[in-house]
Amino acid sequence: MEFDEVIRRRRMVRGYDPDRPLPPELVDKIVRHGLRAPSAGFSQGWSFLVLTEPADRELYWSVTASPEFEADGWLDRMRTAPLIVVALSNKSAYLDRYAEKDKGWADRDENRWPVPYWDIDTGFAALLMHLTAVNEGLGSCFFGIPPVRIPDFMAAFGVPAEFNPVGVLTVGYRGTDKRSPSLKRGHRPVDDVVHHGRWASAAGV
Amino acid sequence: MEFDEVIRRRRMVRGYDPDRPLPPELVDKIVRHGLRAPSAGFSQGWSFLVLTEPADRELYWSVTASPEFEADGWLDRMRTAPLIVVALSNKSAYLDRYAEKDKGWADRDENRWPVPYWDIDTGFAALLMHLTAVNEGLGSCFFGIPPVRIPDFMAAFGVPAEFNPVGVLTVGYRGTDKRSPSLKRGHRPVDDVVHHGRWASAAGV
Repeated sequence: MEFDEVIRRRRMVRGYDPDRPLPPELVDKIVRHGLRAPSAGFSQGWSFLVLTEPADRELYWSVTASPEFEADGWLDRMRTAPLIVVALSNKSAYLDRYAEKDKGWADRDENRWPVPYWDIDTGFAALLMHLTAVNEGLGSCFFGIPPVRIPDFMAAFGVPAEFNPVGVLTVGYRGTDKRSPSLKRGHRPVDDVVHHGRWASAAGV
Repeated sequence: MEFDEVIRRRRMVRGYDPDRPLPPELVDKIVRHGLRAPSAGFSQGWSFLVLTEPADRELYWSVTASPEFEADGWLDRMRTAPLIVVALSNKSAYLDRYAEKDKGWADRDENRWPVPYWDIDTGFAALLMHLTAVNEGLGSCFFGIPPVRIPDFMAAFGVPAEFNPVGVLTVGYRGTDKRSPSLKRGHRPVDDVVHHGRWASAAGV
């Protein structure tokens, strides 16, 4: 598909066809495209937990269950996804990388980082997977694990403590969906969001 | 360009053709594609400072100057970029959005967020701009402003205090470039990064 068309079609899809599994080569392509994301210092301080087996997926949904997910049938629709990818960041990989000789931040001081690039870069990888799903005619949704459920998730899947789940991607052939009510908010006016040369006075704040 | 080709060609480009300005419609397309990024609760808590005038770009480079940028001619090459986009996040827009009735996190408690989605979403927008540049046959680089230089940057461009610069994108026709020495590290082995069903024991840590 043309890149511009992928951008046009991109949206979060929250319901999948439960009778159409994903071919393994598509799962592989989606994940490998994510690994082509850029990362600060080429640290690649990320990891991905890929769940395709029904028992693994059920385990994921059971340990991350939260009342806020039950509303409006969200969880029932999301459970139909044949693929779940949990994207995790590893801050220590970045602090280690930038303490190497060519970078030289040997103090591993987190204050050197304007924002947590370990989370940003892991998000980049998840977005490339999401866009790849669109390009392959699939639907996909990115969302977070509620912090109170993260310890159970980590224990259930044997995730080492230095990793932090940045977000989760569900992927599958599109099924019964329900658009997010948030979309009713509409896009913010471009003039509020884009500032040329200098910050505009009132509207931009 | 085909989406897969964009993914294949994507890399950071750190030198631009100083004699080829960007047509305004391309600047506009790059920025508008960024605004199509997903955001939690459709909060769109981001803003973009777009610098195309030589005086504005010079101001940017002068207020963010840092010894680490001088090494190896990096800054000299980056200064050739005819377009600079600073991507900024606004945490308060997210806390406000999720305190609304349909979300109901009226306490505005940041502990509800597993990672700073205001930064992640702003990164998403920057990545879409970066990919759009690739699709248009341009080069582009994403990097951060050193924290010690952020106050001067904010003052110089009149940026309100609630915004935080997540990163900066330079864009232009490709010129004399120098590949990042970090690339010598190579890609991490897929089996170290991708875990199927459960975390693999040793290699994955």
